Amino acid sequence: MKIPAVKGTRDFYPPQMAVRNFIVDGWKAASLRSGFEEYDGPIFEHLKMYQVKSGDEIAEQLFSLTDRGGRNLAIRPEMTPTLARMVNQQIHALPRPIKWFSVPRLCRAERPQKGRLREFFQWNIDIIGAEDVLADAEVIFCAVDYLKSAGLTAKDIVVKISSRKMLASLLEAVGLEDNQLAGVYAVLDKKAKIPDEAFEAMLQETLPDAAIRGKVRKVMSAVRLDDLSQAAALTEQAKAAVDELKRLFDLLEKMGISEYVQFDIGVVRGLAYYTGVVFEIYDRGRSPRALCGGGRYDNLLSDFGGPKVTATGMGMGDCVLEILLREKGLLRDGDLPTRKLDYYLVTADSSLGQKAVELAAAIRLRGRRCDFSYKGGNLGKQLKQADQSGAAKVIILGEEYSRDQMLVIKDMKSGQQAQAGWEAFLTSLSGA
Amino acid sequence: MKIPAVKGTRDFYPPQMAVRNFIVDGWKAASLRSGFEEYDGPIFEHLKMYQVKSGDEIAEQLFSLTDRGGRNLAIRPEMTPTLARMVNQQIHALPRPIKWFSVPRLCRAERPQKGRLREFFQWNIDIIGAEDVLADAEVIFCAVDYLKSAGLTAKDIVVKISSRKMLASLLEAVGLEDNQLAGVYAVLDKKAKIPDEAFEAMLQETLPDAAIRGKVRKVMSAVRLDDLSQAAALTEQAKAAVDELKRLFDLLEKMGISEYVQFDIGVVRGLAYYTGVVFEIYDRGRSPRALCGGGRYDNLLSDFGGPKVTATGMGMGDCVLEILLREKGLLRDGDLPTRKLDYYLVTADSSLGQKAVELAAAIRLRGRRCDFSYKGGNLGKQLKQADQSGAAKVIILGEEYSRDQMLVIKDMKSGQQAQAGWEAFLTSLSGA
Repeated sequence: MKIPAVKGTRDFYPPQMAVRNFIVDGWKAASLRSGFEEYDGPIFEHLKMYQVKSGDEIAEQLFSLTDRGGRNLAIRPEMTPTLARMVNQQIHALPRPIKWFSVPRLCRAERPQKGRLREFFQWNIDIIGAEDVLADAEVIFCAVDYLKSAGLTAKDIVVKISSRKMLASLLEAVGLEDNQLAGVYAVLDKKAKIPDEAFEAMLQETLPDAAIRGKVRKVMSAVRLDDLSQAAALTEQAKAAVDELKRLFDLLEKMGISEYVQFDIGVVRGLAYYTGVVFEIYDRGRSPRALCGGGRYDNLLSDFGGPKVTATGMGMGDCVLEILLREKGLLRDGDLPTRKLDYYLVTADSSLGQKAVELAAAIRLRGRRCDFSYKGGNLGKQLKQADQSGAAKVIILGEEYSRDQMLVIKDMKSGQQAQAGWEAFLTSLSGA
Repeated sequence: MKIPAVKGTRDFYPPQMAVRNFIVDGWKAASLRSGFEEYDGPIFEHLKMYQVKSGDEIAEQLFSLTDRGGRNLAIRPEMTPTLARMVNQQIHALPRPIKWFSVPRLCRAERPQKGRLREFFQWNIDIIGAEDVLADAEVIFCAVDYLKSAGLTAKDIVVKISSRKMLASLLEAVGLEDNQLAGVYAVLDKKAKIPDEAFEAMLQETLPDAAIRGKVRKVMSAVRLDDLSQAAALTEQAKAAVDELKRLFDLLEKMGISEYVQFDIGVVRGLAYYTGVVFEIYDRGRSPRALCGGGRYDNLLSDFGGPKVTATGMGMGDCVLEILLREKGLLRDGDLPTRKLDYYLVTADSSLGQKAVELAAAIRLRGRRCDFSYKGGNLGKQLKQADQSGAAKVIILGEEYSRDQMLVIKDMKSGQQAQAGWEAFLTSLSGA
């Protein structure tokens, strides 16, 4: 009975697992460099958790299930509701700011396509309880620090930054009502992703008044942050939001990543819950889809029954990132070893097979990685296996061992050989 | 709207995540020491994957779901079917023996109890395509190597080993039919777990013939492997199986772990699919539940539509292990840091806050872990935060910096202080 894998999921054979570990380990290392602590939640939550933010229709995009007690559950499609639930549960015990990261496995019941699978991994970092734009700078810095460490330069990627708070003020100043904003954001978020005519049609539907549309277009045509402060008499609120953005860019410059970041009023983010700074990271070449997105959200904890505590964060998926790293030659099949052996043992004579087992075990018990051939076979064949294993060193139980109980230790990189007695060799491992 | 976590799942706040990482990292390290490669599969598979081995009734113990295409899926309750599927898919491309490990998240829809949750992590190691008992020895060695590295001694735990092949021969020799074996195994597996009378009742139901029961009891009373070879005229098959077991114990002795292992004819394993060596690891003190179990299975790949290739492996869950490690004092709350900072920055004066941001970013971009206080506040308070952060070193931007641009670097362990200029300090990081 042959059963295939479920469509839109991935099998991680050792070479693919090495790629996943390479990405995930990079995320974790960057998070820890910036002082974030790791957390995780269950793979499923009560279905209604996901309906709080996104309405009942979200259920269609989820893998939902019913347990034996009749509870409606769903495999997590995103981490933020779990984060909000967990933080709310311990809000009075957790010292702030809370700087947390996670690398959850997430599932979405959507049609699989390039860079978008039904099961994926997403790096999440969030800072909760820090109002200052410094927290937004830290989130952006941490994302860039990772991408930089993966080999992506400012020529490869760009962080486009804007502010919902600023945009809201500017749009309200040209006559939009507060309750129109969410709809306009959703349309503006589509601008770079759909043809111009389709965008115009959507905008017209959302804003039937041509005069208002003209003013909105003018607002959205601002290229530099300074254009905005000069172009119009700003409301107090808009001025404060522009100043906050300026301070953010100042901080990012001080942090040494100014060449990676730029103001872009067109970055709005589709989700309703952002309330301040928003950003997206794109491949500078082509930008079919953001590599990463995030921003400030002030109401999420309270939406989940907690107090009103401000927060800012971001998410980065593994699929689009892997495609980009491959395109840039920063990730090549076969570059990543599936295991990094310290030693591979070979025997000149099958009678020494048991000695190899004994030595391998002793090496492992001393904390080193070691393997050997089960089948034995001639020395040349075993040396070839040793080479393929990628081990740093090969230990030969050969003539020298049969004659003088001496192990021959060969460094596979330099080709240099040394000899050592059994006990002396093991002692050298314990000492290191 | 306050929504709780799903019953029987765990939230991994940073302290709990540190425990999980401690366990999982230990598993991974032991696997790599013994030359295993990591793999993983999707979190869900087609439901029928789990019915192949365990029948339709297994569906009740699973979290099953239906996707939009109407496919019946289930969250994985174990890893072996995924392993069999993946190996079968590439059976002709994979060099043998295949030595793989994985640390899957698994879910079972059972009633949560101590040491048994509805969501847990399980270390799996398997060797496929190696017939020799050396492969079984490697699996047992790797499990013991991990437990030893976690601090468990031969006084704490014991690996109880037997052989299905041997037991089958012995039971057939006293008159049992081949088709009775699976039923008898299931009963014998219960012996240590249920009261004597309950066991007797079950045995009587499975084997109504009192004479046969007496003979089975006699077989099961063997304490030493040598008892078996001496007690009865063994069939050729039984003799071969006893010899194989003896060779296994020989190998384990050569591998240096003989004090951890013992023969125990009572170890049978409940699952139908074992065909050779079987083993379970117990807490020597009380053994409410095996810490780990495994053995040889020859038919699994072919059950899943592949060729008949022999395999051996084991699984170890995180819940029972964590309880044991805590009982033995090998894992204490608060022992594991949630983040290991290299540096924590404090400022004597709020005017230096921006400098701290700049320095933190520079330190992080040079690959070190660094954090600082967002709020600033007085030096004493910040130094206390630095201490609580567990950072190895504290860098003070104080008077010395205001006056001479000198950073004061304090080693938190030794208490020793040193001074360095900004550039000289950063250069020292790049060099390391």
